[in-house]
Amino acid sequence: MTDGSPEEQIQNAELDQTPELLELYTQFASHHLSPLWTQTSDVLSVHPRSKAVPFVWRWNELYPLAERSGELVPVGRGGERRAIALANPGLGGAPYATTTLWAAIQYLGPHETAPEHRHSQNAFRFVVEGEGVWTVVNGDPVAMRRGDFLLTPGWNFHGHHNDTDRPMAWLDGLDVPFASSIDIGFFEFGSERVTDEASPALSRAERLWAYPGLRPLSGLGETQNSPIHAYRWEYTDQALTEQLALEDEGFPATFGPGHAGIRYSNPTTGGDVMPTIRAEFHRLRAGTSTPTTNEVGSSVWQVFDGSGAMVVDGERRELDRGDVVVVPSWISWSIEAESQLDLFRFSDAPVIERLGFARTRVEHTR
Amino acid sequence: MTDGSPEEQIQNAELDQTPELLELYTQFASHHLSPLWTQTSDVLSVHPRSKAVPFVWRWNELYPLAERSGELVPVGRGGERRAIALANPGLGGAPYATTTLWAAIQYLGPHETAPEHRHSQNAFRFVVEGEGVWTVVNGDPVAMRRGDFLLTPGWNFHGHHNDTDRPMAWLDGLDVPFASSIDIGFFEFGSERVTDEASPALSRAERLWAYPGLRPLSGLGETQNSPIHAYRWEYTDQALTEQLALEDEGFPATFGPGHAGIRYSNPTTGGDVMPTIRAEFHRLRAGTSTPTTNEVGSSVWQVFDGSGAMVVDGERRELDRGDVVVVPSWISWSIEAESQLDLFRFSDAPVIERLGFARTRVEHTR
Amino acid sequence: MTDGSPEEQIQNAELDQTPELLELYTQFASHHLSPLWTQTSDVLSVHPRSKAVPFVWRWNELYPLAERSGELVPVGRGGERRAIALANPGLGGAPYATTTLWAAIQYLGPHETAPEHRHSQNAFRFVVEGEGVWTVVNGDPVAMRRGDFLLTPGWNFHGHHNDTDRPMAWLDGLDVPFASSIDIGFFEFGSERVTDEASPALSRAERLWAYPGLRPLSGLGETQNSPIHAYRWEYTDQALTEQLALEDEGFPATFGPGHAGIRYSNPTTGGDVMPTIRAEFHRLRAGTSTPTTNEVGSSVWQVFDGSGAMVVDGERRELDRGDVVVVPSWISWSIEAESQLDLFRFSDAPVIERLGFARTRVEHTR
Amino acid sequence: MTDGSPEEQIQNAELDQTPELLELYTQFASHHLSPLWTQTSDVLSVHPRSKAVPFVWRWNELYPLAERSGELVPVGRGGERRAIALANPGLGGAPYATTTLWAAIQYLGPHETAPEHRHSQNAFRFVVEGEGVWTVVNGDPVAMRRGDFLLTPGWNFHGHHNDTDRPMAWLDGLDVPFASSIDIGFFEFGSERVTDEASPALSRAERLWAYPGLRPLSGLGETQNSPIHAYRWEYTDQALTEQLALEDEGFPATFGPGHAGIRYSNPTTGGDVMPTIRAEFHRLRAGTSTPTTNEVGSSVWQVFDGSGAMVVDGERRELDRGDVVVVPSWISWSIEAESQLDLFRFSDAPVIERLGFARTRVEHTR
Repeated sequence: MTDGSPEEQIQNAELDQTPELLELYTQFASHHLSPLWTQTSDVLSVHPRSKAVPFVWRWNELYPLAERSGELVPVGRGGERRAIALANPGLGGAPYATTTLWAAIQYLGPHETAPEHRHSQNAFRFVVEGEGVWTVVNGDPVAMRRGDFLLTPGWNFHGHHNDTDRPMAWLDGLDVPFASSIDIGFFEFGSERVTDEASPALSRAERLWAYPGLRPLSGLGETQNSPIHAYRWEYTDQALTEQLALEDEGFPATFGPGHAGIRYSNPTTGGDVMPTIRAEFHRLRAGTSTPTTNEVGSSVWQVFDGSGAMVVDGERRELDRGDVVVVPSWISWSIEAESQLDLFRFSDAPVIERLGFARTRVEHTR
Repeated sequence: MTDGSPEEQIQNAELDQTPELLELYTQFASHHLSPLWTQTSDVLSVHPRSKAVPFVWRWNELYPLAERSGELVPVGRGGERRAIALANPGLGGAPYATTTLWAAIQYLGPHETAPEHRHSQNAFRFVVEGEGVWTVVNGDPVAMRRGDFLLTPGWNFHGHHNDTDRPMAWLDGLDVPFASSIDIGFFEFGSERVTDEASPALSRAERLWAYPGLRPLSGLGETQNSPIHAYRWEYTDQALTEQLALEDEGFPATFGPGHAGIRYSNPTTGGDVMPTIRAEFHRLRAGTSTPTTNEVGSSVWQVFDGSGAMVVDGERRELDRGDVVVVPSWISWSIEAESQLDLFRFSDAPVIERLGFARTRVEHTR
Repeated sequence: MTDGSPEEQIQNAELDQTPELLELYTQFASHHLSPLWTQTSDVLSVHPRSKAVPFVWRWNELYPLAERSGELVPVGRGGERRAIALANPGLGGAPYATTTLWAAIQYLGPHETAPEHRHSQNAFRFVVEGEGVWTVVNGDPVAMRRGDFLLTPGWNFHGHHNDTDRPMAWLDGLDVPFASSIDIGFFEFGSERVTDEASPALSRAERLWAYPGLRPLSGLGETQNSPIHAYRWEYTDQALTEQLALEDEGFPATFGPGHAGIRYSNPTTGGDVMPTIRAEFHRLRAGTSTPTTNEVGSSVWQVFDGSGAMVVDGERRELDRGDVVVVPSWISWSIEAESQLDLFRFSDAPVIERLGFARTRVEHTR
Repeated sequence: MTDGSPEEQIQNAELDQTPELLELYTQFASHHLSPLWTQTSDVLSVHPRSKAVPFVWRWNELYPLAERSGELVPVGRGGERRAIALANPGLGGAPYATTTLWAAIQYLGPHETAPEHRHSQNAFRFVVEGEGVWTVVNGDPVAMRRGDFLLTPGWNFHGHHNDTDRPMAWLDGLDVPFASSIDIGFFEFGSERVTDEASPALSRAERLWAYPGLRPLSGLGETQNSPIHAYRWEYTDQALTEQLALEDEGFPATFGPGHAGIRYSNPTTGGDVMPTIRAEFHRLRAGTSTPTTNEVGSSVWQVFDGSGAMVVDGERRELDRGDVVVVPSWISWSIEAESQLDLFRFSDAPVIERLGFARTRVEHTR
């Protein structure tokens, strides 16, 4: 029991299985009915108990498998993407990292192209290493480089093309499991190749939108997705560096002691970048750790740099660059930094918050 | 294909099952990975294809089974409620009306009490017939009568007690399947009996809140759930009657020709009564029908009065008082009224809209 | 000094009036410039110091003067309305009750008509006595009766006609002074007579909108003004009665001990009825009083029933039915009820709150 | 008449000045009452008719007068600021640029300090030339340089100090006239000197907040004022340059043909930087002009670079660097660029929009 209330198991009704009752249950079944009292303990729980379990995928295992896929599996129409999904061991083989989030490693060989399509599902890319691929979003080529966070929000056409002689792999994040559970997905094919094969350093979206606090007069409305399709590492790094410097100077700036962090936001609202996915970047000084936290909603973390550990549901897991950790809903977690530790995180928090289900418990006893 | 775009099936990659590839797939499995290209057609679809199917439950079958449960199954702690859930035939036996919505018939015998508890899941009651039960919400007894729509929003303690010598049955609606798919549920036991056994005609919530456009100065903040815990039939009926009268007088008032309707709303925001459930009441004049409509998100309809039919996914189903119809996401529906036809409806529309997934297609070719 | 900070007078700069300085001031004047340092004490103040002063107008003086106007002054195009504005003694003769609010007594003789027009300024009517006039709002006749609060929001055509053999007078409230200070007013003539001379008991606006928590499916958008154009006395009275009854029963319902109150609200948002005007109704039990309060923003109060007093800026003023009291910004006020005391209030609070200037000080030392 | 409706003058009632009527008017006056019908034409107008008039102040006249003030007038407590307000010729000598906006040139000599204070009124600085002054906002020193836009929102302590051997002058903008008309002003003295005399290149506010789309985890709430207290010229210039480049490349980016523009925004909401003041920067290519526009609400423009003209209310006014132009509500304006023309603009648009009074008319007949 993790929420402080007295531990109680919700019970089903205990009934003698009389012939009359069994006859009634047969009637229920034939009428497509199901009595609550035989399954109350499944329908209601004292606190969230996700079928998803905490798990770690190692980058040094993921990358070679992605590389091998590059040798054996072509990319193109049919299949659409050379993406390998993290399949939570608790979810019966479904290609889902958590009950709401999809996470995959996508791999594109030299000069390969993943054809354009669009879907209702919201997607992003986060680059833990490499460069040389451009994601083309509604015809706008967006360079991908280490540390960048890149959006392809729902119903935006997008393809990827590798403009170099080297392969590249990155993390894809989507709301596919959530979208599937609420039956909202549309899909449409686009160009067989990307519609603009240019390889500019900056996308047009950035040139129009990526300035601190400045909005173009041509785009004054609220949009449900952020129009900044690329959040560049240089700004993320600088923001985190400054937070720690301000802390050193004695000013409030960090999220916790030694713990800097930014949230990627939609400049037209100040809110999350997409309606179903939150994305953040965290930096912990060497030797610091976070309090143990339980949150409603699930998260996926990827180590960007440094080394340390996460304690998830009481179990300590050492982490290195590129490792991916999933934390299901209401499972406790904390982070410990050996070296300075940089982590990317995404979660379903906007869903949880917009629908009024948010709860957080932070253990301040360290 | 139902959305107007060219019908195309999304394909998986077609690959020769070479030993190398099979070896790779084995590696995937052992590392809890799952390639997108073998299941693209499951992960993405041209339009929503819910596992839930359209279905009709008949009140004249539901009620006798509930009655029989009253004879065989006690109500109380353990089981919690004598509620019989509508189990969509497409959902593998889960007690879910659609992928997001729970609907059940609940039955309480003379002078029985369903003990108090609370849970994160949002709930309401709709009364198609009978009276005599009080739902006690956070200690406030709320009378239940035919035509009333009654709220027990998430984390409000609630119990039911029958103050009469006659049994009563009603429709329960909850967001249990949705809550389950995003892992948000907390639960807590309350009193073994209801905390206030009074049987007033009006709840305190109504006495404080149920006036047109008047807010108490003691409650000026926004609340995520409506503070009006009982929406009485007399107002619903009057509102629908007036809409049709105004239409007769030549003024715009109805939703469509001969089609009156109201949405139950939260007076502190003007929005839906709870963050995950929308509720409406529709009245069609005898002889009218609605256009064929597809909507993202699922609905449950219950006939309150009159007779007619719904055409769901092209199949016509005759309906009588109390019958319950489920319409999964993006399945076409229309209604035909023989007599004046009154229908209650609830849906997951607030989820769909707040997260930016809403689409509607209305066929105006009749 | 009324805000708790040390009393300090803001000073202008004290400068020797040298010839050089006087020459500079001459230059300023000729270039349409004005130095701050000679008028800092006017431009900035330690707390709001309105030019408007507290004042009471007596209904038993207002009504006879309105009646006399009915004998001497025709109503019609040219002049537009037989309205007599309360001119705050501090505002130099301007027809303004406070710096932002207009209040007037309007009088319509038997079978007279005030022609239709519309303007950007927001307006309402409150009826302290009488009945028999219909305000026609965009062609919808709205009956006016004692205790009713009636809206004619900005840019809605409206006229008044008296359908009886008796005169009627009421209180008009508008944002005319505020609108004037920000230069926003448009005006357009409508029909010379009212466009619908019917005299129904209920307006169409009410028939469509005036139900607790029910919204017509034909009107689901947010509107900046409330679509309920008539808030009827029966509901206001009932809401206040129930608040006091709930207090008697031991439940939280009142605004303060013995002090019931409602705010008129826009059912599409839960907010104020119009963007610039807040309206409320207060009821105090005999013998109760409110704490002394200072608020940013100005208010106009009218006694609807009972007798008592207001202490405004430390001065006690006895009040009877129909009396009108203005309270300028940041002037202290409290109310004392001899008998049960019913008061209508309107204010510029939505302006103050939407623009981030709200402050309230309540003296809890009684 | 400028809004397209038939030109009509609103008339007062024409009445014979009988003794009885004059006696009534005397009674009105003695009771602090004012009849509408004698002043309808003042209270209501067919379209906004501001008392403020269009006017141009020349920088080459403003600066020498500010410089002379520097010689003759000390800066310090008493007077508070060496600021010279633009006094609209239509406003009877009041130190107001328009009915809602204050604009002044402020001048600080070498090593002078303007002491700290705070007030409810919202303020900003815009720098058309020079550098070397730091505005200290709640203890955070903010460097001021040509092209920078700097905030001191309501109730933030602020002072200025000149850290150099050269004087500096800049434009102050406030909502003083508006604040005065609604009686909202509080004021408090702070330090006699600035609380932090450091002269960093970047303020702490910028180090924490001035990144494109990144929010610190330590500041996730909505704030009514932008936390970015300095909007630097380098970003403004870059944003405008890119808009014109994108236009050259054939992509939609500009506000109008050859007309780039940005709005300074609050990253926590996407809205205006302060609740009462909007600020924008415009760049027109040489040879372009804007359509003639009328807007509800008033604006102040300052030429930042280049030369051109504004046509205000039909009158053409040549403009050079630093010149300040005021456009009252609903007065037509257009801009013509001879060279590339850069203009800063501020206005009361957030007031107009939040209160529902916005209207714009754009003449597309060029």
